[in-house]
Parts: sequence; structure tokens; C-alpha cells
Amino acid sequence: MRSIELIQPKRIVFGAGCAQGWVDIAVAEGKQRVLLLSTDPIWAVLDRSIDVARQKGLQLMCLDYTWRSEPDTDMFEGLYRQCESFGPQAVVSVGGGSVLDMGKLLAALASGTQKPADVFGKNLLERRDNLLICIPTTAGTGSEVSPNAILFDKRDDEKKGIISPWLVPDLALIDPEMTCSLPPKLTAETGMDALCHCIEAYTNKFAHPTVDLYALKGIEYIYKNLRTAVNEGNNIEARSAMALASMYGGLCLGPVNTSAVHALSYGLAGKYHFAHGLANAVLLPAVMTFNMEADLEKNARMALAMGLPDKGNMRATALSGVEAIRELSRDCGIPQSLSSLGVKKEDLPELADMAMKVKRLLNNNPRELEWKEAVEIYQSIL
Amino acid sequence: MRSIELIQPKRIVFGAGCAQGWVDIAVAEGKQRVLLLSTDPIWAVLDRSIDVARQKGLQLMCLDYTWRSEPDTDMFEGLYRQCESFGPQAVVSVGGGSVLDMGKLLAALASGTQKPADVFGKNLLERRDNLLICIPTTAGTGSEVSPNAILFDKRDDEKKGIISPWLVPDLALIDPEMTCSLPPKLTAETGMDALCHCIEAYTNKFAHPTVDLYALKGIEYIYKNLRTAVNEGNNIEARSAMALASMYGGLCLGPVNTSAVHALSYGLAGKYHFAHGLANAVLLPAVMTFNMEADLEKNARMALAMGLPDKGNMRATALSGVEAIRELSRDCGIPQSLSSLGVKKEDLPELADMAMKVKRLLNNNPRELEWKEAVEIYQSIL
Repeated sequence: MRSIELIQPKRIVFGAGCAQGWVDIAVAEGKQRVLLLSTDPIWAVLDRSIDVARQKGLQLMCLDYTWRSEPDTDMFEGLYRQCESFGPQAVVSVGGGSVLDMGKLLAALASGTQKPADVFGKNLLERRDNLLICIPTTAGTGSEVSPNAILFDKRDDEKKGIISPWLVPDLALIDPEMTCSLPPKLTAETGMDALCHCIEAYTNKFAHPTVDLYALKGIEYIYKNLRTAVNEGNNIEARSAMALASMYGGLCLGPVNTSAVHALSYGLAGKYHFAHGLANAVLLPAVMTFNMEADLEKNARMALAMGLPDKGNMRATALSGVEAIRELSRDCGIPQSLSSLGVKKEDLPELADMAMKVKRLLNNNPRELEWKEAVEIYQSIL
Repeated sequence: MRSIELIQPKRIVFGAGCAQGWVDIAVAEGKQRVLLLSTDPIWAVLDRSIDVARQKGLQLMCLDYTWRSEPDTDMFEGLYRQCESFGPQAVVSVGGGSVLDMGKLLAALASGTQKPADVFGKNLLERRDNLLICIPTTAGTGSEVSPNAILFDKRDDEKKGIISPWLVPDLALIDPEMTCSLPPKLTAETGMDALCHCIEAYTNKFAHPTVDLYALKGIEYIYKNLRTAVNEGNNIEARSAMALASMYGGLCLGPVNTSAVHALSYGLAGKYHFAHGLANAVLLPAVMTFNMEADLEKNARMALAMGLPDKGNMRATALSGVEAIRELSRDCGIPQSLSSLGVKKEDLPELADMAMKVKRLLNNNPRELEWKEAVEIYQSIL
């Protein structure tokens, strides 16, 4: 068994209502100055704990993440300037993937000694001096437990990853109630993103048994619960399973990470401004079909984990899994073609150009995937 | 799904050879004064990294854990006095469960503001100010990732638990090579202890899906690898699987913990000075037989996780699992009767008295177990 390093928050609290616990935790850890980053409509849910925080004497700075698009370097600068002089002892980030990523970066760069431009890539962050608490309000990103943050670099017009153990939150408060009001479309897109994290880790060229454990459980939870979470937003059991699945997906990101789905989605998010989850969701069945041949046994095991019957031979079982995920995606309202989302045939070469730049993820793919194959995958779902 | 809190080291490094990494980690974290606790014959393996540590300018205090018995309050005092003035910035504990537990306590009590007598029980430790690294040399304790430490309190003549998030190490370096020289008897006893952690968490009254995931994987690994680890000590694949199983067992201890096996073993360790793992191993099949009725489905699922065939009905499948574990225990050389280990019939009431004191674990048991049932269980394996 090859070596691996697992990094995760030292405390993960899971359960309905646990999100409000950030105040007591900050107090117990002796943190006075707390930066709270969130966005509408989540502020309303936080009102109660903000009152409690003030009653308990915390110095609170509430910072609003206004944008509806993915985080970029200009947004970071704007937020950083607002909280530069505050010197937070704790950063609490409450939101979807964009808010969590931004909160993680604000926490890690709070001391001002490094700028985003200095830390794009792996292990370039020097330190983080504050307590970092993440509270996800979607079940998808996994950022609440992962060492990753994604930021669009406006200088290069390119989406980039920042990966560092310092970006792993100290605490994740995973409260399925926080996801109940998430609309069906966002539930579907973010849920499919979590599914991509799990599937891309499980079938990864650098897969590892310790991470497979998380990935397979996440795949099972999502396949069995995403439809219900989309159709009955208040179903707390489905929301709970999805919240855990998102966590499991996040636990896959540090030690193994994603592969071609995420690489091929960069252009869709960058050029067409697809939401991150949607871009991945549209690509997933096509990339699975392409990758399946690399490891029929693992693909068959995924199908069995989803609760599908053993078809008697690995290829048939594996294929039934891919088809079931395509069906899940369709049932959850994910568009099945790029053209229906405005992508044109003549853009495919450029999309493939952009995907080819994401070597750090393409290197993880179980089958070699060059420019030509990328175009073919886009073409197959045009 | 009920709420739960998962606590674990923020970094777990797994892999052959990783144990020597403690020096670089201490340097990278800026820790100058390092307390290294270990015991013979492990010191010899550490020679190389001790040299490197000194070359890199670390101030090293090597503290020897001499005893062959389980840690008690007097031993703690003796070790504490030796390192009291050293003021370690990092504590590195390398050994089996006793050494790791002692290292965790020395780290947490290093500041001198609390004594063991102040912290017996749950959540009474106030803080820990140093970096704590644990390196297990057995595959059993799980202490390298758990919030537990066990200390025999000489004042009350009683084995007691200290449970606190501050006892969760910051880093666990899980190096299967460190376990290769462990003799067959110790491999068997410690391995069966890890199996108890997993089984007692999985069948626990307070079991939780997030912990079941670890428990079931641990059970699978141990059932499939313990025989090989006992018979071929240098089989690195078997040692690797056992090392991970021990970690999974340890991850069960904080959020769920053990139940009647561990409670009933307290007297065997206390009065008869059985090794901890041996005491648990002897009891395990009898307690499983007693508990099985409480949840046939979960017992059947354990059997399936072990790779046993589905017998067509839950009771038969569950029973086959219990029998398979009895057989595993026998194959690994664990004595199957208390009398063969010197326990007399007339001592059973007193053993039951002692077990009844361990309410914190008995409360976890899936079936109610009073004094009478405890005597019956001891009697059944006399």
C-alpha cells in the first residue's frame, strides 16, 4: 500500500442546528475578534447567533460576499481591504463553495505578508495565524474540510487553485438544516459536484484505499439521496446524507483530488460562466464513459455501492453505473447537452485548449486524455 | 441522523518509513525543545532520526518508558519529574498503547497546572501547549488518533480513563514497518484489541454511520490480515492493513467508544494483570454471542464485511461471523478460557463487581448487562 497523507479539520461537528455553535467555540478558544463572512440570504439565518456573539462580548466584523459569480482576485482585494485593519483572531465563513474558499483565503492571507499571486499552486502558503471555522450551506463543495481554494486570476484570465494544509479549516460545522432552503437547481448542481469529487477520487490514477473509503460512501449517499434532496428540500434525512457526502468528497480532495471532469469544466466556467457544479455535472457521464475502460472493476464496484444489481459481468455492471448516473443527472434537471447551454461547435477547440492547461488534474485521470480526446468528449455531449 | 462530533489529528501520515519524519516536522513547525518518549527495543530504530535531530539543532530529551506493565499514576509522576523543567515545545511518543497514552498525558500536563487526579473522566483537561506527535509501534491501541488515555490510579487501585480533545495528537505517523518486529503473541493480542474497538463501536448503542464506516473497514482489514501479520511478521501488506485497522479503531473511540468487552476486561487487567489486548481478546467472542440478539442485521453485515458468505438469513450469517472471530482468535494463539490463564471460579463475582464500576462503557452496550450477566459471561469462558 503506497504512502499517503490525510489532512482534515481536527474537529468536525455534524448535525441539525450545529451551525450556531461557532459563537461558543470562538469564546471557548479565547478568540475575541471574529471575522464573519457570509452572503444573502444566509445572513438572516445567522441573526440569532450574531446577537449572541455580541452579547458574549465578541468583537464581530460581518463581511458580505456580494457576488453571484465565482471568486476572483479583484473580489479578494476588495474584501481584503475592508478587513485589513481588523486583525481577526478567528474567521468564520458561512456559505457555498465560493464563500468558503474566499473565507479560507482571507484567513490565510490576513497577516498581509503574502498576496494571492504569491500562493497560486501547491504548498506556497507560509502560515495562518487565526482559527478558521467553515460552515457550508450547500452540499457540494467539500471546501469545509479540504485544503483547496479556487480563485479566478484576473491578470491571466485563468481559474487557478491554491492548495495548502493551512487552508484546511480547524473546524467544520456541518449542519444539514443550513441546506434545506437551497433551491432545487442549486441542490442538483452542487450535489453533482460532490459526486464528481467522489467519483474522480475513486477512479483516480492516484487512488488510495483510505480515500476510496470516503469516496464510495459519498457515491452511495448521493445516488440514494440527491433526487429526494432536490424534490423535497426539507427532507432532513436526505439533506443529512448529502451533507456527509459533500464532506466525504471534500476529504478526497487533499490526498487524491479530481481529474478530467474538473479539468474539462474549467473552460465552461471561465468562458461561458457556467456554475462550477453545472459544468461538472454536464461533463460527468461522458468522462465516465471515456474512463470506464481503465478500470472496469472499480467502475463495477461503484455501481454496487450505489445499490445497483450485479449484472454478472464487470463491464455490464460498470456500464449500468454510468447509465444510472446519467439518469440521476437528468432526473435532477441537469441539462444533458452543451448546445442547450449555449456552447457552439466552433468553440470546442478553445475549450479543449483551456482544459489542456489544467495538467495538475489531467495527470490524475485514469486514461490519458489529450486535446483530441477532450474535443471528442465535448463533441459527444454537444 | 443524530448529531456527532468527529475529532482526529489534523494530519495523519501513513506509509512505510514515515516514522522517521518527526524530525522534519518538528523543524518545520519551529519546535526547538522536543521530548521523545519511547522504550526498548524501539530506541534502536530511532537512533538514526535522533542523530538527524541533533544535527538539525533540536534540543532533545529522550525519556525512557521502562515498565512492561500498564501505565499507572506512580509511573506518570516519575516520568513527569524527569522532564518537568524541560518545557517541551513538542512531545513525540513512540511505542505501543502504554507509551502513547503516557506521552499524551505528559504533553497535556506538561505545564504543571493540572495533575492526573484532576483530569480523570471526560473533558476535564484544560489545555495542551505543545505539538503532540504519536508514532504507534503496535497495531491495536488506536491511541495515535484517539482522545483517550488510560491510567491505573494507585490511590483507588482502579484503572481509569482520561478523555479529552486535548489528548488527540496533532499528528499521527503510522508506519507499518515499525510493527514488523512485533512478536506473534503481541501482534495477536494488540490486533484483537483493535478488532474489539471496531466491533464494539459498530454494535454500540450509540453507533453512528460516520463511525460505522471506519469500524466496518477495520473489521474487514483485521479479519483478512491478522493471521498473516501473526504468522509472517515481515509481510508489509498485512502489517499495513493492520496499521490502518488500528487507526480506524482509534477513530471509533472518541465519538462512540467501546462497550462490554472493555468493561469486563478491567478486572482481568487489574486483578490478574492480563495484558489489555489479551483480556479483551478472551472476552470478545463470548460478549459478541451475548450481544448478537440486539441487532442481528448489524452482526450479519459484519460477517459480510469480513468476506463471509450470506447464509440466507440474518441470524445464521450473524452467527457465522461470531464463529469466524472465535476461530481467528484461536488461530492467532489467543487462549480461549479464563482458567487456562489462572482465573478461578470463585473470583468471578469480584471480576463482575469490578466490571460494574465501568458504567461509562457498559452504558454503550447494545444489550443491558448487569452483574448476573457479567458473571454468566465469565462463566461461559471459564
